[in-house]
Amino acid sequence: MSSWWNRPIICFVNKINFESRILDLGYIIPEAPAPQGSYLPCRVVGNLAFMSGVLPMEAGVISHSGIVGVDVTLDEARAAARICIFNLLSNLKAEIGDLNRIEAIVRLGGFVASAADFGDHPVVINAASDLLVEIFGDVGRHSRAAVGVASLPRNACVEIDAIISFI
Amino acid sequence: MSSWWNRPIICFVNKINFESRILDLGYIIPEAPAPQGSYLPCRVVGNLAFMSGVLPMEAGVISHSGIVGVDVTLDEARAAARICIFNLLSNLKAEIGDLNRIEAIVRLGGFVASAADFGDHPVVINAASDLLVEIFGDVGRHSRAAVGVASLPRNACVEIDAIISFI
Amino acid sequence: MSSWWNRPIICFVNKINFESRILDLGYIIPEAPAPQGSYLPCRVVGNLAFMSGVLPMEAGVISHSGIVGVDVTLDEARAAARICIFNLLSNLKAEIGDLNRIEAIVRLGGFVASAADFGDHPVVINAASDLLVEIFGDVGRHSRAAVGVASLPRNACVEIDAIISFI
Repeated sequence: MSSWWNRPIICFVNKINFESRILDLGYIIPEAPAPQGSYLPCRVVGNLAFMSGVLPMEAGVISHSGIVGVDVTLDEARAAARICIFNLLSNLKAEIGDLNRIEAIVRLGGFVASAADFGDHPVVINAASDLLVEIFGDVGRHSRAAVGVASLPRNACVEIDAIISFI
Repeated sequence: MSSWWNRPIICFVNKINFESRILDLGYIIPEAPAPQGSYLPCRVVGNLAFMSGVLPMEAGVISHSGIVGVDVTLDEARAAARICIFNLLSNLKAEIGDLNRIEAIVRLGGFVASAADFGDHPVVINAASDLLVEIFGDVGRHSRAAVGVASLPRNACVEIDAIISFI
Repeated sequence: MSSWWNRPIICFVNKINFESRILDLGYIIPEAPAPQGSYLPCRVVGNLAFMSGVLPMEAGVISHSGIVGVDVTLDEARAAARICIFNLLSNLKAEIGDLNRIEAIVRLGGFVASAADFGDHPVVINAASDLLVEIFGDVGRHSRAAVGVASLPRNACVEIDAIISFI
């Protein structure tokens, strides 16, 4: 692969300082939320971090609960999806220490609590995807599956999990 | 690993030419469908291609929408699952150029829009699994989770995502 | 990485004999259940085993079917989640021969058949997570997504898939 002496150059040219960028954008990575059960927020294997599903939890409370399109508007669900991403990044930072280590947001799983006639799952999960690209640029561009589920833990309206590669 | 000079031999002995096989079977890989949001159809990490969830989209239109067992018959849902696979392969070909590079269809996620009393999700997703084995032989044999979801993007009746390894 | 001569020491100090531990706990790994379709119970890529979704199947019969919170109690669903784990381990043992080869339960996907007002998915899937930690200790600690689905194959109340790393 590349030799050690050209690494820093590649780094300075191509890479955003993600931690600074989050601050510049006015975002705050919250305290990592406690898992809702006996599992880890993140499990690393090789250079992949498998991130547990996170809920739109703020200060221990679900920000938006219920079914999107029935109890929760599209805009509220989009706000919830963004909160999920901040919680996800919080869990990752707790594991790897520095978000600058992220190489790629590889995959996002977006679960939207929804009724049988709902079809705007991408509109909801786009709020999460857009936020990742806003922060991480091309590094944040990911594959994704967005689906409509019957219900979610603690009646959250959205849940998001992820696979993230890092160095 | 193996030296370069025995690669072609291994290749000729064990491997089907998948691109030819698709033509021989009379199948056509369609134009890659546009993503339904701000994400990538495929994100590669190492030798793994994480494929975004695809819908039964033909020429920009969902072929079968609604709930399987209510609005959509089992046979229609099976046809939709096959269309998903062609779209998935189209996305993969757009990324890696040549489907002969596929080493293994590692995992399929099959999401079937269904009601609470439905139980034939495997019948639907088998249409996708069988198609992959028909084209790729043992290379196409994969692990899988098939579940029944409340609804899917654009009211599609099926969505399929995948992890595929390639060289 | 580590040299060959310190491997056994690390092994004896840190590692539980998982096969013995399963027996000591009085658990029995059942015969691997037949797949409900044309897929593999497990597909290995590198050192990762992608495990297909398993159902709470005992001797070919679903132990608990229906919707959790409606047809199935929380306790019954928890029992079903544990049966899923035994089936998962059975499938893995059939593939890799010896469960002592497990390095990490990397990720669990927990699908709970549930109604729109259900929120106790973690309570159900914790039964699976706790069982894995009981058997495998820290090796069994995993990331996880628990969601509520509309329905599952053969009307099972729970389905669990997994990614497991091994040597």
